Amino acid sequence: MPKRNISEISHLIDEDLKRFNELFKQSLKSKVALVDLITRYILKQKGKKVRPLLVLLSSKIAGGVSGRSYRGAILVELLHTATLVHDDVVDNAETRRSFPSINAVWKNKIAVLMGDYLLSRGLMQAVDGSDYDFLKVITNTVRRMSEGELLQTSKTRKLDNDEETYFRIISDKTASLLSTCCEVGARAATEDDEKIKAMRDFGENLGIAFQIRDDILDFVGTSSLLGKPLGGDIKEKKLTLPLIYALKNSPADEVKQVIKTMKASEKKIDVNLVIEFVKRNGGIEYADKVAKEYSEKAKQNLSIFENSEYKSALSDLADFVVERTK
Amino acid sequence: MPKRNISEISHLIDEDLKRFNELFKQSLKSKVALVDLITRYILKQKGKKVRPLLVLLSSKIAGGVSGRSYRGAILVELLHTATLVHDDVVDNAETRRSFPSINAVWKNKIAVLMGDYLLSRGLMQAVDGSDYDFLKVITNTVRRMSEGELLQTSKTRKLDNDEETYFRIISDKTASLLSTCCEVGARAATEDDEKIKAMRDFGENLGIAFQIRDDILDFVGTSSLLGKPLGGDIKEKKLTLPLIYALKNSPADEVKQVIKTMKASEKKIDVNLVIEFVKRNGGIEYADKVAKEYSEKAKQNLSIFENSEYKSALSDLADFVVERTK
Repeated sequence: MPKRNISEISHLIDEDLKRFNELFKQSLKSKVALVDLITRYILKQKGKKVRPLLVLLSSKIAGGVSGRSYRGAILVELLHTATLVHDDVVDNAETRRSFPSINAVWKNKIAVLMGDYLLSRGLMQAVDGSDYDFLKVITNTVRRMSEGELLQTSKTRKLDNDEETYFRIISDKTASLLSTCCEVGARAATEDDEKIKAMRDFGENLGIAFQIRDDILDFVGTSSLLGKPLGGDIKEKKLTLPLIYALKNSPADEVKQVIKTMKASEKKIDVNLVIEFVKRNGGIEYADKVAKEYSEKAKQNLSIFENSEYKSALSDLADFVVERTK
Repeated sequence: MPKRNISEISHLIDEDLKRFNELFKQSLKSKVALVDLITRYILKQKGKKVRPLLVLLSSKIAGGVSGRSYRGAILVELLHTATLVHDDVVDNAETRRSFPSINAVWKNKIAVLMGDYLLSRGLMQAVDGSDYDFLKVITNTVRRMSEGELLQTSKTRKLDNDEETYFRIISDKTASLLSTCCEVGARAATEDDEKIKAMRDFGENLGIAFQIRDDILDFVGTSSLLGKPLGGDIKEKKLTLPLIYALKNSPADEVKQVIKTMKASEKKIDVNLVIEFVKRNGGIEYADKVAKEYSEKAKQNLSIFENSEYKSALSDLADFVVERTK
């Protein structure tokens, strides 16, 4: 088990996170009653706030939290929230953090518009604060996230993926935002390019480790802990690292059988057959090893900073993401 | 009939529009094959390019077209295209300009992501060109457009609207983007605040006139010219200016009958009853008068500029939007 979980790590900067929450709430105010109603609904669903945590810890380690750190944290959280609202439309999701999703309560129309609204509020705030360096980073991230998802979708349809493309996809769709959080946090605290690059790389490596672990949990997690059945990626015909490895390193007849079931319609796919195939052929061990390599790389990125409780917290976070069970 | 239609007006700056089209195409390039496939599909559907036309004419009248004018034109066209792609998801539209819509060909998932992608490309380009003044204008426009649509949706559900709210909605959802086109075009050509304000106001008044005419055509247009049946707004329970006026200025028993049918489910609404009610009670004449007032205001906004063929073109455009039949 990891030394500390996210709540324990967050505890270190409770006061800063409290201030963030107040400012985030203010940033969502609208004159349109429906918009206010939906944002209040979103605010009720307290997530883990991993992204603001990353921004603020990155500021702390790079020199200290400033007004710009809070603006950066609000920007990434607004972008992340916008993405979640759009994702639920994209996936026809019924729930989000055990609450009915926005699209389930207010329909797709309102969910798409709310996503656009949240993104524009984030960008406006960055423009108003003249945080042009943040804008440069964040607009590129929005591009990478949408392009990464589109690449994944096109690969999924063809049941065709390799390690190289897998890493490109998870770098774009997941690691880019975590990397942005760390870069924005660092930029808010320092103009030292070496420190900014170290934090950007830390976020990128952390994000890749995080996503590989996510993909592993789809094979070996505990359904009740995850709050969803295992094998979701298999049903969606998503080839993730454990499966890509196993398909390349297993006897031909086994591979043939797996490909056959995965080509079936969603309901007919034999999920357990695929899970057992991956486990038997070393897919989990391999992916776990790679995830831990990225986690180690992330920790190495922190080496240029002096030791501090914030550095320890970020280091523990890198351990946590590859050891978590949910 | 108006003096010139959009094609005739566009003809004046054919060379500039050609250059715009080349640059627009380049701005859409992606390394992801699926993204390229979809952008090529979008480029095949040549729209009227009203927004780039407005940007470029506004630059012309305010001092001349520059590299920044093209960047501004690409920014607004990317934003507009992103909005259309999201709108089709929002409305479950099957077609767009007689082509199957993106969501119809590639499903909602891809359409939502493509919209996000197009918007991010526009913003990235503005960041790369250090066009921070454009960013300030455009992010506020994205907010206004989504907030305006959300306000309309909430009013629509309650079958509750008044003139004041109607003008707020059409200003936010339609006029804001046309106003932005004109402001961005002017900013690319001059730093004179009076000229910039004049063009922003011109775009705002033009946009309101345009939308009122659009709403009138839903009652009195020719279905074959419009490419859709009349009464679409009525079926969606949208109260637009002609109907808002008629509901306020008609005998109580007639009003009661109209409200009754509009409360029915979409298929049961007696569209002809509502159209006849609006025509009989002066709703069309009233809305037409108001649209023409805004068109006149727009032309007055041009008065500070010296006479030129570009000024005439913008003036003709203001006439065109309130006289068009499709």
